[in-house]
Amino acid sequence: MKSSLDLKGKIFLPGGFAFAAVRAGIKASGRLDLATVQMCPGTTAAAVFTKNRVTAAPLQVAKASLKTAKGQVRALVVNSGNANCATGDAGLKACQRVCKEAARIAEAKTEEIFPSSTGMIGVPFPVDKVVAKLPELIGQASTTEQGVRQFAEAILTTDTRIKLASTILPSRKGDVTLLGVAKGSGMIHPQLATMLVYVFTDLVAAPRQLSRILRDACGDTFNCMSVDGDTSTNDTVLLLASGQSGVRLKSLGVAKAFTNALREVCQSLAEQIVSDGEGVKHVIRLFVEQAKNRKQALKVARAVAHSALVKTAWAGGDPNWGRILAAAGYSGAAINPKRVNIFIGDQQVCKAGQAHAFDGAEAHYYLSQPQCEVRVQLGQGRVQIRFLTTDLTSEYVHINADYST
Amino acid sequence: MKSSLDLKGKIFLPGGFAFAAVRAGIKASGRLDLATVQMCPGTTAAAVFTKNRVTAAPLQVAKASLKTAKGQVRALVVNSGNANCATGDAGLKACQRVCKEAARIAEAKTEEIFPSSTGMIGVPFPVDKVVAKLPELIGQASTTEQGVRQFAEAILTTDTRIKLASTILPSRKGDVTLLGVAKGSGMIHPQLATMLVYVFTDLVAAPRQLSRILRDACGDTFNCMSVDGDTSTNDTVLLLASGQSGVRLKSLGVAKAFTNALREVCQSLAEQIVSDGEGVKHVIRLFVEQAKNRKQALKVARAVAHSALVKTAWAGGDPNWGRILAAAGYSGAAINPKRVNIFIGDQQVCKAGQAHAFDGAEAHYYLSQPQCEVRVQLGQGRVQIRFLTTDLTSEYVHINADYST
Repeated sequence: MKSSLDLKGKIFLPGGFAFAAVRAGIKASGRLDLATVQMCPGTTAAAVFTKNRVTAAPLQVAKASLKTAKGQVRALVVNSGNANCATGDAGLKACQRVCKEAARIAEAKTEEIFPSSTGMIGVPFPVDKVVAKLPELIGQASTTEQGVRQFAEAILTTDTRIKLASTILPSRKGDVTLLGVAKGSGMIHPQLATMLVYVFTDLVAAPRQLSRILRDACGDTFNCMSVDGDTSTNDTVLLLASGQSGVRLKSLGVAKAFTNALREVCQSLAEQIVSDGEGVKHVIRLFVEQAKNRKQALKVARAVAHSALVKTAWAGGDPNWGRILAAAGYSGAAINPKRVNIFIGDQQVCKAGQAHAFDGAEAHYYLSQPQCEVRVQLGQGRVQIRFLTTDLTSEYVHINADYST
Repeated sequence: MKSSLDLKGKIFLPGGFAFAAVRAGIKASGRLDLATVQMCPGTTAAAVFTKNRVTAAPLQVAKASLKTAKGQVRALVVNSGNANCATGDAGLKACQRVCKEAARIAEAKTEEIFPSSTGMIGVPFPVDKVVAKLPELIGQASTTEQGVRQFAEAILTTDTRIKLASTILPSRKGDVTLLGVAKGSGMIHPQLATMLVYVFTDLVAAPRQLSRILRDACGDTFNCMSVDGDTSTNDTVLLLASGQSGVRLKSLGVAKAFTNALREVCQSLAEQIVSDGEGVKHVIRLFVEQAKNRKQALKVARAVAHSALVKTAWAGGDPNWGRILAAAGYSGAAINPKRVNIFIGDQQVCKAGQAHAFDGAEAHYYLSQPQCEVRVQLGQGRVQIRFLTTDLTSEYVHINADYST
């Protein structure tokens, strides 16, 4: 399996997708802010949306369209700079107009256009600017690395870099290619919303099959990470399958291999998002082990990952295991403190819920690295999860405390 | 009703309580760190403890003792500088030894001693230092304001000031006095644990009656505040009734008036704790209104109060209502975004889930004050709650990111 799970390697491009991006003047900076991916007929899709009750107009439209079109998508239209959220009926109509116009130009059905927006919340959507640029945007169609990079750049907001991961999966019926593109950096910033993830593949699969696989992959990756604990109003993960490889998901051995490859691509994008989080200096791979079940492990992981005290300790490279133990204690998971072990890197710092002698200077040095591993063992079962989290730094506060309105 | 709900006024002292504090050398600073309150025979008690599964030794001992003694307490022994938490069997035995020694000196039963500790987690408890000082400590017994102030000082950790509130409640049978003393400043700091609250009264009441009233009062006050969202391992609220006023809780009209007075004292202490929170520059009184029920209102309040993005917006005086709406959306409460109104001070900033024109400069000026009010109306019912929260500042990060071990 050839993989390119970071930005240094080559990008593998699945067949059946064409990329484009333009400047529509939505971002004050004048950067690329409107992008599209066009797909060949027959492309199937599955999506996962934010669980926030406050959802942006494009999410409402996309959900309804996916249903009406029975999981068929012909084009993705994404803008950055405006989230089209908390914009009421006007926002909903604006989004519908964009889809209708894009469909007309792309010669597709309106419900085959998948809209996404990311940017400021509560600001009227500049629909005229977007519609005016659609002919130019949809007239372009690049199947080059350059096209993918421009698409990846056009969907960024406060991100400092583009996020890409791709892999080629060999099978007896031929190669299947996966390409993932993401944005996200903290969940919301001066009212900027969102994590957006698009994964493109040339596999042949029905929407229902894609949906099941996508949910599994998200559960282990995007649902196991946290920068600031805030769930955006626009979060979207979309998986698109063009079928151009001719390889069917149902073929012998393909489903499992594809599931693993998708999880790898998603995990790589999750790590890229967390590493590029606002003000982040340290990424922590938090392992919760020996849990009774996944739910218990997740409760502990989320409490530790969201604790302001634990996160500030990471910022200072402080092996402050008392805060980790306390967070596990109030997590709501039925832990038994007397069975809890905690490790920072290779060093055990807490044994059976009590202090365990360790080299503080070494632990501090270890935690001062940009990437660290921390293990919390609950001593109750065999389930383990990995959760990506970050420190909470003064830079995060500065970025988010700036007066923005 | 005469009240003294801040530090400027006179302290009202209920009969039947004697205060004392000494330096036992637990705190490296050499400040007062061991304190006691002795009570007359027949004093009844009720307590509320942390819900954290990781609980300190003194909480385990106090819970068991209160039960064995059927709610009778003769002396409180509190130390600061060491939380006696995550200290295993040695910590438990140390606490039991302190209680036994104190009981012997005070001529009480061991189970009538109520222990509390606050300070570092996971550090062996200096039991010899404490036991050596008990004769001197318990030999003192002051019923003066000075004695109360020394007690209040001895229980502090990172707090910058003592926390007191007292009130006199007139009744047809005579006056009832309430005095509350608290500590707390962020939930944990370099492994420092805890909010401790003691309320003393001369009312006549059975432990079971006190328990019900105390739970109600905590629900509206200490359970409706948050500095950093971390629940300590040592949190304790203790209500003690000496009976010296001769006024019975069961007397006509007393129960309701006492309940209100207790809530006022607790609310004042809660505000003092939040105002003295680590790095806090702004205290926000968050009102969640028009909720279906209290549970829904609390879910919304907690999500808004714990959101790193909302808290950093407070730090910058930023009227960033999009973050408040988004937090309400992911709170888990079944809100309808289209019915949500948000007010900052007197200004409406969000109407029916959408932007509502407001004077941004005025809102910024208002939020720059040390105390502000924010209202979130859910448009679903008639229940409202008040929740005390704070901003998240760079100072909080600096305080908590310092390398402590």
